[in-house]
Amino acid sequence: MSERPLPPHLPLNRSRLIAPGPVEVEPRVLLELAQPQIHHRTPQGIERLMEARAKLTRLLGDPYDAVITTSSGTGAFEGALISLTPEGGRVVNAQAGKFSERWGDMSERLGYETVRVARPWGDLLDPEEVADAARNAHTLLITHSETSTGALHDLAAIAQAAKAQNPDLVIIADCITSYGVAELRPAAWGVDVIVSGSQKGAATPPGLGFVLFSPEVQERMIPTPQRGFYLDLTRELKGQKAGNTPQTPAINLISALSLALDRLLAVPLEVLWAEKRRQADALIAAGEALGAPAWAARTSPAVAVLKPPAPLTGRQVAARLAAMGQRALPGQAPYEDTVFRVSTLGYADRYDALGIAGMLEDAFASLGVSFERGAAVQAAWRVLGEERRVMAGCEAR
Amino acid sequence: MSERPLPPHLPLNRSRLIAPGPVEVEPRVLLELAQPQIHHRTPQGIERLMEARAKLTRLLGDPYDAVITTSSGTGAFEGALISLTPEGGRVVNAQAGKFSERWGDMSERLGYETVRVARPWGDLLDPEEVADAARNAHTLLITHSETSTGALHDLAAIAQAAKAQNPDLVIIADCITSYGVAELRPAAWGVDVIVSGSQKGAATPPGLGFVLFSPEVQERMIPTPQRGFYLDLTRELKGQKAGNTPQTPAINLISALSLALDRLLAVPLEVLWAEKRRQADALIAAGEALGAPAWAARTSPAVAVLKPPAPLTGRQVAARLAAMGQRALPGQAPYEDTVFRVSTLGYADRYDALGIAGMLEDAFASLGVSFERGAAVQAAWRVLGEERRVMAGCEAR
Repeated sequence: MSERPLPPHLPLNRSRLIAPGPVEVEPRVLLELAQPQIHHRTPQGIERLMEARAKLTRLLGDPYDAVITTSSGTGAFEGALISLTPEGGRVVNAQAGKFSERWGDMSERLGYETVRVARPWGDLLDPEEVADAARNAHTLLITHSETSTGALHDLAAIAQAAKAQNPDLVIIADCITSYGVAELRPAAWGVDVIVSGSQKGAATPPGLGFVLFSPEVQERMIPTPQRGFYLDLTRELKGQKAGNTPQTPAINLISALSLALDRLLAVPLEVLWAEKRRQADALIAAGEALGAPAWAARTSPAVAVLKPPAPLTGRQVAARLAAMGQRALPGQAPYEDTVFRVSTLGYADRYDALGIAGMLEDAFASLGVSFERGAAVQAAWRVLGEERRVMAGCEAR
Repeated sequence: MSERPLPPHLPLNRSRLIAPGPVEVEPRVLLELAQPQIHHRTPQGIERLMEARAKLTRLLGDPYDAVITTSSGTGAFEGALISLTPEGGRVVNAQAGKFSERWGDMSERLGYETVRVARPWGDLLDPEEVADAARNAHTLLITHSETSTGALHDLAAIAQAAKAQNPDLVIIADCITSYGVAELRPAAWGVDVIVSGSQKGAATPPGLGFVLFSPEVQERMIPTPQRGFYLDLTRELKGQKAGNTPQTPAINLISALSLALDRLLAVPLEVLWAEKRRQADALIAAGEALGAPAWAARTSPAVAVLKPPAPLTGRQVAARLAAMGQRALPGQAPYEDTVFRVSTLGYADRYDALGIAGMLEDAFASLGVSFERGAAVQAAWRVLGEERRVMAGCEAR
């Protein structure tokens, strides 16, 4: 394997974000941020908030009530946790990657009795193991799409197994990269709370968190959470249902979000999920053709986390793509070299997925990897282009 | 051939302009239009004008002086014609398509003694035939890239043959879609005047025309053209060389243009031409794989003009692509059904070319055309992805 000089045309490439968030944003959504400033306490501001909240519920598919936080997804997750878990309560954290580990760290910091059910990064969580650990817990924290490993944990099986053993369990799911991307049926699965953020499937710039509460779990919210004021979602949910935000919201981002959601809601959720699934499958097929298979056995439609063939490292691949104007990511520490991550989250479509397959070929070729030119592009297109898939509904992988 | 229903995911496609102008524009170039208004008579306004003019000269490669008109390319062309051709002068118009025909119409309307050397649409102009006709002419009008047929006429051979017979001939070339796209060496070829517009290779919104004059031809400009005031480029050139615009210029567009040109000028012209050549070749290869070969024998790198297999029509293909969110074009009347036109002119790169190959497959498949799925994508990628091509310099087709 010997690196070749970069081809001279690279400055002519169009720059793209092909990382699992922040994502490409539709220009008219970006321009919505620059519209004349409105005031959030006016009828117009309240209407924007209520519209965006209603669309978030439609994007979920179940009649959960949405709170929009002016924070990252982490802030939204903390708000969900403290607003539903009493001081010192028992929290089970199911973890198998960077992001799920952080929820355990958060829970400990906040003084909860924290039990971690840990699997190695890249592995899948075992529903029975999680359910056993959650038998006497108040709250279960579980990550649906683990963005650090590309695993899509079986949220349905885990939630159902855990609720079977402990019907009073509050299940808070990190759906930060799965909401609006992966099949998600929280009411049927018994997931009480869904948490996400604006810069992922919602294809909006960063700055907003989303928390969607089931009707039932709202009865169990703590009137005055002791561990937070800004992130007191009990007050926030009550306020937002009535068109108020106790805090000043990022109203421009909310307007942009509302516009961005229209595009996703233009098709049935099953069509949206199936199309994002195919796009990720195309990236994974491209990786396989280059000797870079997916790390996880059950893959997320939000991100392809691929293991480059030795001695190539994840950092090398990401750096080469960056030199080509394409912003992918290496693995999360300490797996920077183990994997690289590419994605069509956000404002990107099947033809962009095909383009990413081409970028991977160009990057691998210029890094001196031997492979049959065209193999990755062909593999990706086979997934995207087959008629039966174009017409198919939602499919699991 | 039987049409199939459109797949349900289409609203999730990203919309794109894939027509030969107006083109996709880089978002930061669009945003430049929305910067605080500046005044064109201030030092800042003059600096913008002079910067943009200098960059237009660099994009040409020869030390021609640029005039920027606030008009379409047609206005710029008329300005070039009237500022260089005396009242009633003899004008030869070489034509083989819609756009070159219009220059003949313009010349007649303006009262010039107009001789048309016409070839059927899609054919190539014959250098000797054009040179013979131009023997006693004052001005020769010639189109380099004929956007209606996709032909790239052999401007070098035609200009050299014509100048060999008539060294005093003024040659004005319509390089509207070839400037910044196709190999163009006006000084060496003997082309005196180059005309283009902003919404093509320069990847800027419509509204500006460009005329680049050789040092020699400037001596022959008419002091006070009788057929125009606004388009008096003699006055305009003199003014712009000194930092003045006799008319109010679209200064915001000029600022945007300057930014857009930076991207093109980041590589040597040979690299730019070779990359755009490959992109067009990829689209043409995709068309061939679908039974839709190029109309012209010598193809323009600015646009692929492809003949769909009967009974499929150009209008059907363009309409189907439009339904998929992709704005291509049918042929120009009366050839709307004979061909369709796709392009990566403007802010689009090799991965977009690959994506267009995929779009063509999806469009043809949904229109019921039989072909081997993947053939067009593979053919396009073969052109784009081969190492020797990636590393090669300028290549003619």
